[in-house]
Amino acid sequence: MRKIYLIGIGAGNPEYITIQAIKALNLVDVFFFVDKGDAKQELVDLRKEICDRYIENKSYRVVETSDPVRDPGIPDYKTRVEHWHRERALLYEQMISLELTEDQCGAFLVWGDPSLYDSTLRIIDQIVARSQVAFEYEVVPGITSVQALAARHKITLNGIGESICITTGRNLAAGLEQMERVVVMLDGNCVFRSLAGQEKDTEIFWGAYLGMQDEILVRGNLSDVSGEIEQKRTNARERKGWIMDTYMLSKPDRK
Amino acid sequence: MRKIYLIGIGAGNPEYITIQAIKALNLVDVFFFVDKGDAKQELVDLRKEICDRYIENKSYRVVETSDPVRDPGIPDYKTRVEHWHRERALLYEQMISLELTEDQCGAFLVWGDPSLYDSTLRIIDQIVARSQVAFEYEVVPGITSVQALAARHKITLNGIGESICITTGRNLAAGLEQMERVVVMLDGNCVFRSLAGQEKDTEIFWGAYLGMQDEILVRGNLSDVSGEIEQKRTNARERKGWIMDTYMLSKPDRK
Ligand SMILES: C[S@@+](CC[C@H](N)C(=O)[O-])C[C@H]1O[C@@H](n2cnc3c(N)ncnc32)[C@H](O)[C@@H]1O
Ligand SMILES: C[S@@+](CC[C@H](N)C(=O)[O-])C[C@H]1O[C@@H](n2cnc3c(N)ncnc32)[C@H](O)[C@@H]1O
Repeated sequence: MRKIYLIGIGAGNPEYITIQAIKALNLVDVFFFVDKGDAKQELVDLRKEICDRYIENKSYRVVETSDPVRDPGIPDYKTRVEHWHRERALLYEQMISLELTEDQCGAFLVWGDPSLYDSTLRIIDQIVARSQVAFEYEVVPGITSVQALAARHKITLNGIGESICITTGRNLAAGLEQMERVVVMLDGNCVFRSLAGQEKDTEIFWGAYLGMQDEILVRGNLSDVSGEIEQKRTNARERKGWIMDTYMLSKPDRK
Repeated sequence: MRKIYLIGIGAGNPEYITIQAIKALNLVDVFFFVDKGDAKQELVDLRKEICDRYIENKSYRVVETSDPVRDPGIPDYKTRVEHWHRERALLYEQMISLELTEDQCGAFLVWGDPSLYDSTLRIIDQIVARSQVAFEYEVVPGITSVQALAARHKITLNGIGESICITTGRNLAAGLEQMERVVVMLDGNCVFRSLAGQEKDTEIFWGAYLGMQDEILVRGNLSDVSGEIEQKRTNARERKGWIMDTYMLSKPDRK
């Protein structure tokens, strides 16, 4: 039977890769590289570097394709994303059935961990539900950007005995999650700025390009450093053409 | 200067180890193995297996010690834990200054990831604050039990665009966190049982000894499977003498 691996490659540093991932990489006949079309060539290169560096027998093939774009005509966020997932499911299904013979093994290399703000697993589930092509699949966990953030700042995610919430910039903007510590991903709008005035005691631990050569770290009282972060973020983004950043907000007394 | 590594070794499967961790392991002169005194010999063995398997030059030393126990005379949970951390700080400080020469490198191997429900980093912070012994330190992230849970069940942690909360059995018992999905760790009391009646639509994804040989997975509607989980948990715990389990609660319609 065909087999598909969803391999978490870690969120930036090529050395975040696990032994389990390396073993899986070495079983793969065909890698599916999906170009997100937003010119993040560096991220595609990192995937290639990982294959180069960790695969011993270089007989694998790479199939590159472009992701369908989200339909801006669909106003509701969730509906738009779901529609987009459906289109991707059709595309991925086609790739799996056309590019793999019955006894071959394919893989998607997922940034960070496949379980966190990534849609590949959901797409695979949809293909399984459609049952047009039969395959087994397996998920290989990877180091997330949340853990990279914590490791690089040398901080813990939870306070003693406390909870931790991981959320998006969009959710944060809709009202700060009522928790001691919040990790925010996918925030293209610097939502933290709008909290800088209100939340006097909040500390921020911010990181961009975590684990990568261009890594930038800033930490401090949110009101004090939010301008600095915004500035650094804008500059870096201009220089590189793209940015990935994550941050934790924390009430210092609850540490 | 002395250097200390806090190395996340992943939460069970020895192949969860990263290349970054393996490189760090190979720089270490002295490993500090802290025996938690609860007879989890298997967990100590896994650390030894990791050293054996991934370190090329076997010239390192292992220093084993027993953790101080928590003082049951201190009623408040947080105070009790803080007191315990202080005692451990003194112990670890002593080990670092006595067992490492100025140019040597020591390491603590941390189960899963050092940022998640683990106190080693907090202890190191305390030692730094006391400034009785000078050292540099570095944190190496590892695969958490949360990610192991998600990978083994092949599920995502967050719903599309939604948040995810990671909490403890104690917090869960105090009132279900108001979120679509909650990952629960450190639940020795099967708190999920008490929710089985109230939360009709909730699904549970449960895993014990994740990534290990004795791994057990159960998933289903919380009311339907909570008895089965409790049973399996009790049996496994009796057979092995200890258990580690984690679970996610999720409202299926929010998937
Ligand atoms: C689509 S999500 C993918 C998350 C990924 N699956 C993970 O496990 O980290 C992309 C978001 O992750 C965060 N991110 C990923 N890699 C990062 C890095 N190296 N540095 C900072 N943030 C990162 C950013 O918040 C970005 O907006
Ligand atoms: C003190 S916390 C340490 C967590 C660890 N730092 C991590 O990153 O997963 C111990 C709790 O982690 C969870 N846990 C750790 N390893 C596990 C495993 N292999 N299977 C299931 N649960 C695990 C259990 O909930 C356990 O009570």
